[in-house]
Amino acid sequence: MTTRSQPMVSEPRKALRVYLHLKDRILSGTLASAARMPSEPDLAIEHGVSRVTIRGALERLAEEGLVERRPGSGTYVRAASRSGAIVADFSNVFTHLVEMGRRTDVRLISFGYASPTPAVAEALGLGPGEEVQRSVRVRIADGTPFSYLVTYVPKRIGISYSEADLRSTPLLELLERSGARVASARQTVGATQAGPEIAEALGTETGAALLSITRIVKDEAGAGVEYLYALYRPDLYELQLDLERTKRGSAMRWAAKSPVATGRPANATEPRNPKKTGTGKRKTTR
Amino acid sequence: MTTRSQPMVSEPRKALRVYLHLKDRILSGTLASAARMPSEPDLAIEHGVSRVTIRGALERLAEEGLVERRPGSGTYVRAASRSGAIVADFSNVFTHLVEMGRRTDVRLISFGYASPTPAVAEALGLGPGEEVQRSVRVRIADGTPFSYLVTYVPKRIGISYSEADLRSTPLLELLERSGARVASARQTVGATQAGPEIAEALGTETGAALLSITRIVKDEAGAGVEYLYALYRPDLYELQLDLERTKRGSAMRWAAKSPVATGRPANATEPRNPKKTGTGKRKTTR
Repeated sequence: MTTRSQPMVSEPRKALRVYLHLKDRILSGTLASAARMPSEPDLAIEHGVSRVTIRGALERLAEEGLVERRPGSGTYVRAASRSGAIVADFSNVFTHLVEMGRRTDVRLISFGYASPTPAVAEALGLGPGEEVQRSVRVRIADGTPFSYLVTYVPKRIGISYSEADLRSTPLLELLERSGARVASARQTVGATQAGPEIAEALGTETGAALLSITRIVKDEAGAGVEYLYALYRPDLYELQLDLERTKRGSAMRWAAKSPVATGRPANATEPRNPKKTGTGKRKTTR
Repeated sequence: MTTRSQPMVSEPRKALRVYLHLKDRILSGTLASAARMPSEPDLAIEHGVSRVTIRGALERLAEEGLVERRPGSGTYVRAASRSGAIVADFSNVFTHLVEMGRRTDVRLISFGYASPTPAVAEALGLGPGEEVQRSVRVRIADGTPFSYLVTYVPKRIGISYSEADLRSTPLLELLERSGARVASARQTVGATQAGPEIAEALGTETGAALLSITRIVKDEAGAGVEYLYALYRPDLYELQLDLERTKRGSAMRWAAKSPVATGRPANATEPRNPKKTGTGKRKTTR
């Protein structure tokens, strides 16, 4: 009887590790672009995994445009560009998408009234017992879901529009139509791993990295109008900001350039995913 | 002989799934704040895992301040605030840290000259065969590593400072000292999963979600001065931007407020991690 113990790390977990390891090396430039990668058997030995696992990792890198697989020749590192993603400035995502001629759509997952969490109540400056209208939407560009949006609106504003309105009209437009004088917002940007439900809604894997944005929107009087918690697939969507070097006192500092509609970055090439190149226009929510 | 097959998902993987599932429900408000969580045995049955796995997931949520464990009483949901993170605007991270009185430090992992990847060469507008000075640094705040920075500088600029300079002085200061007239930058913000090496450098787990920033810095003539690929632990660091609602033509749009040093968000409470509350000042690199 052999005493070989059960492997501690499952095969999918190993494939993830190998994929992330190779991706790190490509993105950090350790594996030079255009270089031929080691062969699948060599990579399998190096990482102590099966060739099937190596193949899975390389295929995922190829899907993301980080390597190119040339049949009969091998796998080659590509430039570390992420040209397939939607690139927008920090503020006008959907205006920007519509201007780019992308077909966007929304799937309303839930709509209802509830008690806010203390964080939401505090951020929106709600009184005790004040309810919020809570909605969960998935945003779709050219057929591909790329963002998951949870919004909270004070009930007194939320009752001015219906579930049907939210399926067809940007939330901010609904808020302004209801008379809210939207004046300012504070955005916080982070990252998180997808849980199983959000992963499924976004067509990605549990544990995948997502870009997160929390936005607290206020009116002219400083009263809370909307609290947004948004998650984005970073392979499909990135934020962009242009900065200027300016003098403040004796020190040089970065300042945000007044945003204009931004295009793709200078190094953008053809989109990787043909599903994302539609040209129809469609009314959009947020 | 039983025919029960080997579980397809390993126990650590299950713990991750349970943790992410519960975190989703807390952050999206499905599990109300202040609510008592189901008991460990009930959660174990609900998720089909062991109590040990449940305990691991709850401990991780407690470390992140999302639940509170009260001995003899149970586990309670806390507000979905992420008050332990450094919060800075998009531009002046380290000026901001120093102004906040945080002790920051840098660990230089590598320093050398190499051929750029095509993406870096294109972004910096380098000529054929032109080399870059490549450095990898880990940024530490009050003893905790929170960012992993890979920078590329054209060799003709890079030779004006040494490895020792980079250990003690902000890179942008070195660049400006060398005569570069830094004028603008384009920042792209995304998210990625940590590979094993970066995870180790940042004291986190392989696969953890990281905030990523790519910054291309140019001089007054539009020539590339620096290419930065930076990864941040989102539990320790978040970006913040204030927006104003402004009129452009007939449409209302968001515009970035001219950035000032930003403090913590209004809902910030005490830092969760006492290691992050030092008050010493220290010279800092980026």
